[in-house]
Amino acid sequence: MKVTPPVNRTTAQLADGRDIFFYDDETRTRSVHDGRDIARPEGANEMRFDPLLGEWTAVAAARQNRTHKPSADACPLCPSTPERATEVPEAEFDVVVFENRFPSFRGEAPVPPDVLEHLEPAEEAGGLVRPGAGRCEVVVFTDQHTGQLAEVPAARMRTVVDAWADRTEALMREPGVEQVYIFENRGEEIGVTLHHPHGQIYGYPFRTPRTQKIMAQADGFRRRHGKDLFDEILSAEPPQGSPVILAGERWTAMVPPWARWPVEIMILPHRSVGRLHELTEAERTEFAAMYLEVLRRGDQLFDGPLPYISGWQQAPRGATGEDMRLHLQLFSIRRASNKLKYLAGSESGMGVFINDIAPEDMAARLRDAGDDA
Amino acid sequence: MKVTPPVNRTTAQLADGRDIFFYDDETRTRSVHDGRDIARPEGANEMRFDPLLGEWTAVAAARQNRTHKPSADACPLCPSTPERATEVPEAEFDVVVFENRFPSFRGEAPVPPDVLEHLEPAEEAGGLVRPGAGRCEVVVFTDQHTGQLAEVPAARMRTVVDAWADRTEALMREPGVEQVYIFENRGEEIGVTLHHPHGQIYGYPFRTPRTQKIMAQADGFRRRHGKDLFDEILSAEPPQGSPVILAGERWTAMVPPWARWPVEIMILPHRSVGRLHELTEAERTEFAAMYLEVLRRGDQLFDGPLPYISGWQQAPRGATGEDMRLHLQLFSIRRASNKLKYLAGSESGMGVFINDIAPEDMAARLRDAGDDA
Repeated sequence: MKVTPPVNRTTAQLADGRDIFFYDDETRTRSVHDGRDIARPEGANEMRFDPLLGEWTAVAAARQNRTHKPSADACPLCPSTPERATEVPEAEFDVVVFENRFPSFRGEAPVPPDVLEHLEPAEEAGGLVRPGAGRCEVVVFTDQHTGQLAEVPAARMRTVVDAWADRTEALMREPGVEQVYIFENRGEEIGVTLHHPHGQIYGYPFRTPRTQKIMAQADGFRRRHGKDLFDEILSAEPPQGSPVILAGERWTAMVPPWARWPVEIMILPHRSVGRLHELTEAERTEFAAMYLEVLRRGDQLFDGPLPYISGWQQAPRGATGEDMRLHLQLFSIRRASNKLKYLAGSESGMGVFINDIAPEDMAARLRDAGDDA
Repeated sequence: MKVTPPVNRTTAQLADGRDIFFYDDETRTRSVHDGRDIARPEGANEMRFDPLLGEWTAVAAARQNRTHKPSADACPLCPSTPERATEVPEAEFDVVVFENRFPSFRGEAPVPPDVLEHLEPAEEAGGLVRPGAGRCEVVVFTDQHTGQLAEVPAARMRTVVDAWADRTEALMREPGVEQVYIFENRGEEIGVTLHHPHGQIYGYPFRTPRTQKIMAQADGFRRRHGKDLFDEILSAEPPQGSPVILAGERWTAMVPPWARWPVEIMILPHRSVGRLHELTEAERTEFAAMYLEVLRRGDQLFDGPLPYISGWQQAPRGATGEDMRLHLQLFSIRRASNKLKYLAGSESGMGVFINDIAPEDMAARLRDAGDDA
């Protein structure tokens, strides 16, 4: 199950002390030096407890002034040149990961699970404030400013998977991190403020609401049926039509029959693993090829590239793949070439989603998209 | 606690059998006749069970072709004229409510709470499909196509409150409805497809995720502390600053210290009531004035009218105000005059919100906005 530690990794620090990691497609030696005179932005990170929902909100006022849609010649994710120092102090790179200058989560004290147990009622009802905790990183997929992750060669996609896995393993050892979420927001339609192809990594200081729900459901399913929920999802044959887009040897890509979004894709491994660094070499290689194919088919659905959010749901600290199987969730707010799905009253106010497209119809469209490719 | 049944209501049917209700600022007699030759759109409403989250998604494929940003002279919410029949078969009106032609929820069979208990594992993991249930209505606040709810006179706002209360009481008697959500989406930024000032009413066939969480928290708070969570929220004095915008005799408007959105306002009654129709005359009148003032102050925050979602959180069937106190929740995605807060990876993928504005700062801005008014 263990893979070789990455020989293609170079570790360094940026001028303000943030960590930076280079992952190269082929092993090479780098001597990184960031000569900028920069300091970390002021502004506290905090967490607030919502006594009505029993959940934490991050308050990160420093982010209000973060870099917002810079022009291409001011991109902080491009390589540095003799004329301009960026966030990446090298003249070229393959994949690079560094700590976010404007983090939503930062700090070393995770929320103790019993923090609420000894509170006075007025403290709890007044919105308990805790210092920020956790860690946020940026993952740059290429040193080319234009383009899409869907267009990188298979070898680069595999380097990206290795970088994701390596950072997951490292962050799960950090104090303050309970769970690692790796994701990409793509498209101005969903609020992307930097166009250079990149993703993000959040090390949350608590178990997220979505993960808590999934773990409770998987646990309940096992108690009621004595079976693994994820195995059953893979083998189910819904009467309204097949959810499968691509069926591989080690992974299946599908549109779940309960999809909330007009386009929603789940990529699920056939083996019970909890986190990315538990994947074998063969699983990583198959995933890389399948993911590129899924991204390409997504871009064929409507006019222009598909705006999407894509993220890895992983097992938190103390949980295994049986409690919460690793899977990728990709979804889009596009419902037609000229229409977006907005989260309005029902979704944002009540948590009830309305999908205008039957999931099995979207599965068929994405299955058939391969025939033209 | 009971108020007089509305003498200002006229009940009728549209040509395709949908109900329509006129609420007039002053009592008057209407004889409504819809002469159109229309039928209800084809397309099934369904609900799908998500076995990973334990929640229902509505699939409403007929909505994909709903009316989308019509020009002012094609508005379906304007009064009818001799030349053009709209959804409202009268030449003028004050407030009108009618069944949505493109409903997200429709049908008379609510989801039995034990529907999952006797399922086979493959059925549950394959995404159980249920026929649609519930009811959706549209509330038009004025017969004037342009304008905002914030601009109506106090008497009209009071008629709107009475219409909301009357429809809540009626829908809670409908088979298929477990909970009533009354809301307004305002602004193209959040996806509004019709500009005529209007809101919506959803009669959900189940308890929504948000309501389930609030009820669990209120119950846990009472067990731990022997106190009412909503009373404690009203009396708490958070050390980081006051959350109060307006403190009335019967209602308080505040920015909760755990706000998830750049602008988020909660309006909470001082008395423990569960649903709108339980409000006294005095409570309705004070709310109407306070709400108009809150809307006006919101519009002063940034350049141009504030895009917002505003909705009534009400107690579901079988619950009282002690389990779930009625309150209004208003929030906006605007975080600066030229910037929106998008729900990206963390919010949409994990359910973790990041707020770039400290809630007590927003409370102070909305408190101070009154001084210029």
